Amino acid sequence: MMILPEKVTIIEVGPRDGLQNENDFVPTEKKLDFIRELQKAGFQEMEITSFVSPKWVPQMADSFHIATNCGSTNIRNFILVPNKRGIDQLLQTNIKAVAIFVGVSDSFNKKNINRSLKESLQQLAKPVQELKDSGFFVRVCISTAFYCPYEGKISEERVIDLCNQFVQLGVDELSIADTIGMASPLEAYSLFTKLKATFPEIFITAHFHDTRKMGLANIFASLQAGVDRFDCSTGGLGGCPFAPGASGNVATEDVVYMLGRLGIQTGINLNQLVKAIDVIQPHISRKIDSAYYQAYKKSLPV
Amino acid sequence: MMILPEKVTIIEVGPRDGLQNENDFVPTEKKLDFIRELQKAGFQEMEITSFVSPKWVPQMADSFHIATNCGSTNIRNFILVPNKRGIDQLLQTNIKAVAIFVGVSDSFNKKNINRSLKESLQQLAKPVQELKDSGFFVRVCISTAFYCPYEGKISEERVIDLCNQFVQLGVDELSIADTIGMASPLEAYSLFTKLKATFPEIFITAHFHDTRKMGLANIFASLQAGVDRFDCSTGGLGGCPFAPGASGNVATEDVVYMLGRLGIQTGINLNQLVKAIDVIQPHISRKIDSAYYQAYKKSLPV
Repeated sequence: MMILPEKVTIIEVGPRDGLQNENDFVPTEKKLDFIRELQKAGFQEMEITSFVSPKWVPQMADSFHIATNCGSTNIRNFILVPNKRGIDQLLQTNIKAVAIFVGVSDSFNKKNINRSLKESLQQLAKPVQELKDSGFFVRVCISTAFYCPYEGKISEERVIDLCNQFVQLGVDELSIADTIGMASPLEAYSLFTKLKATFPEIFITAHFHDTRKMGLANIFASLQAGVDRFDCSTGGLGGCPFAPGASGNVATEDVVYMLGRLGIQTGINLNQLVKAIDVIQPHISRKIDSAYYQAYKKSLPV
Repeated sequence: MMILPEKVTIIEVGPRDGLQNENDFVPTEKKLDFIRELQKAGFQEMEITSFVSPKWVPQMADSFHIATNCGSTNIRNFILVPNKRGIDQLLQTNIKAVAIFVGVSDSFNKKNINRSLKESLQQLAKPVQELKDSGFFVRVCISTAFYCPYEGKISEERVIDLCNQFVQLGVDELSIADTIGMASPLEAYSLFTKLKATFPEIFITAHFHDTRKMGLANIFASLQAGVDRFDCSTGGLGGCPFAPGASGNVATEDVVYMLGRLGIQTGINLNQLVKAIDVIQPHISRKIDSAYYQAYKKSLPV
C-alpha cells in the first residue's frame, strides 16, 4: 500500500511566474480577468504578480495596479518582491503574503539577481523579520534546488543548509524548485523526505518544471515523501529567462487531474480552470498544449 | 528507501505499433533503415511489423518484406499476427517471436478485431499451442486493461482472469496496456503488484500511452511494483485507430532518459536513438516533440 496525502494545496503561479516569462505583454484587464477566473476555480493561494523593475521585466510593468485590483482578499495572494524597493511598494497595498526568491547556486544568483547568495541573505534578513513583525506570510522560493544550468548537480546538504537559514529568520514556507526540470523522481523523493523530516513546522512546497517530461512523475514521488503543496502554472505557462532551456512549469490542470485520479482532494474545479485557460490563450504567443486541456477540447473521457 | 529494479528491458514498438498508426505509408526502405538504426541503439526486443490485412492497415502492406529483411536475428524480433492467416505467413519467415493481441473489453474487441473475447480465445488456443510447440516466444498484448473507450473502467479481476487463461495456454509474456492513456499511477501500481504476484514465472510488461500526461508517472509507479519490462515507441509514435483519442505511446527516449536518471540500466544508447528519430522524422506527418529529443536538439543539458 502506498500512503499519499488525502488533500493537496495547489499554489497557482500562472499570473506571476507564467505571464512574467511569456514574450508578450498581456493587457492589464486580461490579466485581471485571468486572475478572477482562477479565483473562481477555487485556488486558495496564488502568486498574482511581482514588484520587479519594469526595465528588466516589462511584462510586469502594471504590477501595482494588478496587486491593488486583484479582488478577493480572503485567499492568500502572493506578491513576489526581489528587493527593498519591492517591499516598500508592497506595504502600500493590502496584501499580506510575500514571496522572495534566491537560488542555491551562486552562479545562478549572480545571473538572476546580480548578487551572491551571501549578499542575498544579508540583504534579506532584516526585511524578512520586518515583514514577519507586520503579520506577513513569508514564502521563500528556492531556485536551482536540484540542478543549476551553470554548476550542475546541487547537493542536498547545500539546499538544507540554505533552508535552515531562512527557517531561522522565521519564514513560513519553503518552495523548493527544480528550475531547469532535471530532477529525477528518486532525487525528488530523497530531498523532500529530508526536508519534511528536518522542518516539520514549515510549509514545504514542491515546484517542478516539465522540461524533460518528469514533472508528474516527480510529483508522484514527492507525494510519497509526504509533500502536500505544489506550485503549478495554469496552461503550463512560464519558464525562466535566466535559466537557458527551462520550459514551462507543470500545468495546473494536468496536476489537478492526476491528483483527482489518485483520490486526492484539491478543491479545484477543472471545468472552471479550462475557462481560465480560454481567457488567457488569445493573449499569449504559444498554443497551450497541456494534456488535460487538449483532451478536454477533443471531448476525450477525463 | 524505494526499491526499484536494477535493470529494465525496453521492448521497442515504434516500427510496428508506431508506424501502423501514422497516417502516411512510410517507404519500405525507410522502415528498414529505421529498424537498423534502432538495432544499433541496443534494443534486444522489438516489434518490427504486423501481418495484418493490407485492406484494413495499408501502412503494413510491406510487412512480409520487412519481416524477411530486418537483419539481426540474435535479438527478439516480434511480428504481430491477428489470425491464422498471419500465423501461416509467419511460418514462412525465420522469425521465432510472435505477438498476439486481445482486449479485455468485449466492445473494444468487436470494434478492433471484429470478434468477441470468447471467440478470440477459442480461435487463439490451438495456434498458441502450435506456436509454443514450434519453439516460438509468445507475447500476448492485453489491450484496454485499465479503461475501455466504450465500457469505462475495467476491473482488475477481469484482467487477471484473462491473463490466467493465456498463462494456461503456455504463453511467455503478458504485455498489459493502458490503451487510451487513462490509468493513474495508483491503478498501475495496484494492478502490476497483483500481476507480478499472481504470475511470477511470466514476463510481465507494462504498456502506457501518454494521452493524459501520466505515462512516466505510471512507469515510476510500475517500477515500484517490480515491473522491469516496458513497451515504448521511439518518437512517441503511434496511437490506436480503434480507440478514439488514444494518442502516442510513451516515447522510448523519454523513458530511457528517466530510467538512466533513476540509476536503472537499459543498455540503450540515447545518442544512437536520436539518430533513429532523425531517420524516421522526415517520413511521418507530425513533428516529433518528445521531451528528450527536443532537449537534445536545443543542446540542453541531459
